[in-house]
Amino acid sequence: MKIGFIGLGHMGTGMACNLVKAGHEVTVYNRSPEKATPLVEQGARATSEITDACAGELVITMLADDHAVESVVLGASGVVASLGNNAVHASMSTVSVALSERLAAAHATAGQRYVAAPVFGRPEAAAAGKLFIVAAGADQAIDACLPAFAALGQKTFRIGDRPEAANLVKLSGNFLIAAMIESLGEALALVSKGGIDRRVYLDLLTSTLFTAPVYKNYGGMIAEGKFEPAGFAAPLGQKDIRLTLAAAEALRVAMRLASLLRDRFLTLLAQGGENLDWSAIARLAAKDSGQG
Amino acid sequence: MKIGFIGLGHMGTGMACNLVKAGHEVTVYNRSPEKATPLVEQGARATSEITDACAGELVITMLADDHAVESVVLGASGVVASLGNNAVHASMSTVSVALSERLAAAHATAGQRYVAAPVFGRPEAAAAGKLFIVAAGADQAIDACLPAFAALGQKTFRIGDRPEAANLVKLSGNFLIAAMIESLGEALALVSKGGIDRRVYLDLLTSTLFTAPVYKNYGGMIAEGKFEPAGFAAPLGQKDIRLTLAAAEALRVAMRLASLLRDRFLTLLAQGGENLDWSAIARLAAKDSGQG
Amino acid sequence: MKIGFIGLGHMGTGMACNLVKAGHEVTVYNRSPEKATPLVEQGARATSEITDACAGELVITMLADDHAVESVVLGASGVVASLGNNAVHASMSTVSVALSERLAAAHATAGQRYVAAPVFGRPEAAAAGKLFIVAAGADQAIDACLPAFAALGQKTFRIGDRPEAANLVKLSGNFLIAAMIESLGEALALVSKGGIDRRVYLDLLTSTLFTAPVYKNYGGMIAEGKFEPAGFAAPLGQKDIRLTLAAAEALRVAMRLASLLRDRFLTLLAQGGENLDWSAIARLAAKDSGQG
Amino acid sequence: MKIGFIGLGHMGTGMACNLVKAGHEVTVYNRSPEKATPLVEQGARATSEITDACAGELVITMLADDHAVESVVLGASGVVASLGNNAVHASMSTVSVALSERLAAAHATAGQRYVAAPVFGRPEAAAAGKLFIVAAGADQAIDACLPAFAALGQKTFRIGDRPEAANLVKLSGNFLIAAMIESLGEALALVSKGGIDRRVYLDLLTSTLFTAPVYKNYGGMIAEGKFEPAGFAAPLGQKDIRLTLAAAEALRVAMRLASLLRDRFLTLLAQGGENLDWSAIARLAAKDSGQG
Repeated sequence: MKIGFIGLGHMGTGMACNLVKAGHEVTVYNRSPEKATPLVEQGARATSEITDACAGELVITMLADDHAVESVVLGASGVVASLGNNAVHASMSTVSVALSERLAAAHATAGQRYVAAPVFGRPEAAAAGKLFIVAAGADQAIDACLPAFAALGQKTFRIGDRPEAANLVKLSGNFLIAAMIESLGEALALVSKGGIDRRVYLDLLTSTLFTAPVYKNYGGMIAEGKFEPAGFAAPLGQKDIRLTLAAAEALRVAMRLASLLRDRFLTLLAQGGENLDWSAIARLAAKDSGQG
Repeated sequence: MKIGFIGLGHMGTGMACNLVKAGHEVTVYNRSPEKATPLVEQGARATSEITDACAGELVITMLADDHAVESVVLGASGVVASLGNNAVHASMSTVSVALSERLAAAHATAGQRYVAAPVFGRPEAAAAGKLFIVAAGADQAIDACLPAFAALGQKTFRIGDRPEAANLVKLSGNFLIAAMIESLGEALALVSKGGIDRRVYLDLLTSTLFTAPVYKNYGGMIAEGKFEPAGFAAPLGQKDIRLTLAAAEALRVAMRLASLLRDRFLTLLAQGGENLDWSAIARLAAKDSGQG
Repeated sequence: MKIGFIGLGHMGTGMACNLVKAGHEVTVYNRSPEKATPLVEQGARATSEITDACAGELVITMLADDHAVESVVLGASGVVASLGNNAVHASMSTVSVALSERLAAAHATAGQRYVAAPVFGRPEAAAAGKLFIVAAGADQAIDACLPAFAALGQKTFRIGDRPEAANLVKLSGNFLIAAMIESLGEALALVSKGGIDRRVYLDLLTSTLFTAPVYKNYGGMIAEGKFEPAGFAAPLGQKDIRLTLAAAEALRVAMRLASLLRDRFLTLLAQGGENLDWSAIARLAAKDSGQG
Repeated sequence: MKIGFIGLGHMGTGMACNLVKAGHEVTVYNRSPEKATPLVEQGARATSEITDACAGELVITMLADDHAVESVVLGASGVVASLGNNAVHASMSTVSVALSERLAAAHATAGQRYVAAPVFGRPEAAAAGKLFIVAAGADQAIDACLPAFAALGQKTFRIGDRPEAANLVKLSGNFLIAAMIESLGEALALVSKGGIDRRVYLDLLTSTLFTAPVYKNYGGMIAEGKFEPAGFAAPLGQKDIRLTLAAAEALRVAMRLASLLRDRFLTLLAQGGENLDWSAIARLAAKDSGQG
């Protein structure tokens, strides 16, 4: 396939690379052009114009936030302005439900197709082509993306024809992870103030009830109090909880635990946690209790 | 071993049965004596006196709550009054940290040994001898229990020589499960109001990020709104969160998520949820949002 | 003074009327022009163009929300486009801190002066000229407004030269009222389930500790469960808590009680409380407890 | 009247003194007998036996907590053991609803009368005879107390014939004050991080919406960050919120704001606030936001 790929950050670089390796003809664009160099070495074509990345059947965007996506997709000479009739834009970034709705409308008006396809997985999973892809949009539009998705992820889940549903699922998934982090933070604050070894406790939990890797990985970071370097930085966590709450507000769903998480992230950032992993919210319960 | 077993409820019956099967000489006691009949058929000896159950090297108690344990252990003709010098009482019930401390003191004064050994696992796991046992107490006292524990559980975790630490771990584990239930309840309220199929959503979650069985089992109940019959009834859930918060208060650890859970359980019970599974707190977020 | 007045809602009508009565030369504008009729009878001049309302030394806006203010002030042929050099815009609406900052910048660029001057008080207080006015902006700009403010309120508080500070104070004041409503709701849910007469209880409170009228008025509504007609409708309450939290997020201040209120308002709206007074959040605690 | 008075702490000393001044024949008892000296100088009779204080028509207890009341009233040679037939015990301490129920039952069994009559007011109000008294119990029993209450308070509110209702009202009142403190703490954290002078802000609030003295007094302490010496110490605040939540749990009323307060008090105590005024919970919001 002839694919444009926009956004060569921690996630995007590995993803674009996998597309190249899979034999697709890939044109990459990044605001800071030097990020494209390694991909060009792998066989990609680099461009300094978004328009060039929109010349094929499919363009994928993988950007940091709403602001970046809005500017790249809806801006002058952006994706909507450039993409051909019936071509597909697969937006894989974690963005707001509201923006996804706007993109869907803009692409429809322009005679283009739009798939929201955010992913679960960290940069290592992106590099290994092991992401989980949550795709929503018209069935045929998703079908058109499958050759690309096959190179990017280990599985694609289809969850309906309204693109923004995929964004809602992605945000809710990050909420669930943050909720787990908070629960571990409180439990560890309790047992460690009760004199129990945090490591022993965590091993017990993760070899019995909570065997999912997400408990082991985050639990280990929390038990050791090691939040740097950040795998997923606190401001990104705060952003995702904000977007979750914004989507929930639009649907009039009160989410008390999400509200609690919102307050934790604000506290973490107010106290200088900008560069920490988002799981550092877990140490706030310990701090409140006079530990550490 | 010559073992006394006190408390033949949903959990205790299967546990006592496994002790008999493993070849131990078991004397069972239950307040309502008819519960002992099936065990007698398996080869246990039944008694109507707690004292008789305390004649061996080890007596195990598996009772519903603090009140029952207090009366059986500390009452006249109870375990402390009956147990021989150096014999061991293994308390496997889920009770408060404060009561466990009192039991430890009472047994020490009486020249007896005390192990707190609460378990993780539902009645099916108890019947199958697949419990996880969290044991704390003097090393030699735990050693003395191992032949029994081998018949009851798939693994015994030792977490130190202060018995009440085991109770704290057990309570915190139930807190973590309840926290997970709440998080799923909120996430499902959000996505289902957003038009996403709850089953599809849950399958996605539990085949990617949250592969632990505890997510699958509770998630399934929540997605289907099926909270009867109760595997673990709401009043028991409320009790465990209350005990968690009591332990946290004694240690001066603020647990915000546990406070949130406390309020959920009170609401569930105030609205008639007495006979529902404790995971029914998950439907409160949906109700708040006008669903169901 | 020659004053333009934009926005003839529940609050604005009484305010404009007081300006006329005080002898000012008032030009009124309202999107739905029929609202102007009674004012014209009092001596005001009506216009169908915002520009006409901006011909004097001072224009006052009193509108429903950010959206209305943004469109009236920043739109084509709006206040910024129309107001004369050095003339003053006094924005008395309850709007976001962020919008107030944008208005300040826009007016500064256009060589105009800007005062944020939101008010405390219900429509009756507006009609009686008894509002409390919270003013921020350049001292001389506030001075220029004083002849008008004298007709509108019983007192003007100056809280500095950054206009948005006045908006922050206004929002925080509404937060404090909502917090009081929540506290009364919980206390009344408790004592009434405990068999105590709600009216007797409230009389006791408001004649001892909580003598402020705000406790008496809202307390009475809550004790009687009478939330219609709405003096200040639930969606407006929700909006103000949202704006409070947005300002707090920008400043990185976690406000847990505000988060709790946010969830209450969402629940109230999700359950059909659109037309109720915002104090109806107080009945949610009673509902949670199985009352009413 | 011939009155016994038990408990000469900050509150009790002033109260007993007012009874003496009013011409009653007062016998005082305090665990530490030296506290009685000033009262003897005023004309009271001191005793080292609770029994002596129970020889008249009325005995009043004013003690620190449940534990003290339980021991004085229900202990050997305590009030229940000593009081004459049909004599009245007026319990004016702030205690739990559950203890008040136990006292009512014990006095009924012993053929004595019992009135719960907790008070609102600080030590200065106690010394000035300006307390507000919340009385519940049999009408004639309250009537019998009125000559004493007239000397102690500015007003007596009768709220029914179940004594424990008075305790519930008292606890809920302290909850409302703590809720107000929390709301002020969050509002001040917000506006002060927004650059607004805390004093100016507080003056504005308390001269407009929140004119009750309780806002002025606590607001002043919070604005100035002056929490020592404690008028009402943090551990007492924590105790009262605990008792409020215990009463609410028994009635199955979820009180979210009370839960929030519970967490605040635990945090304050865990961080060394033992000797601060309970209003110091208000500084936690500021600390969370990186201020101070």
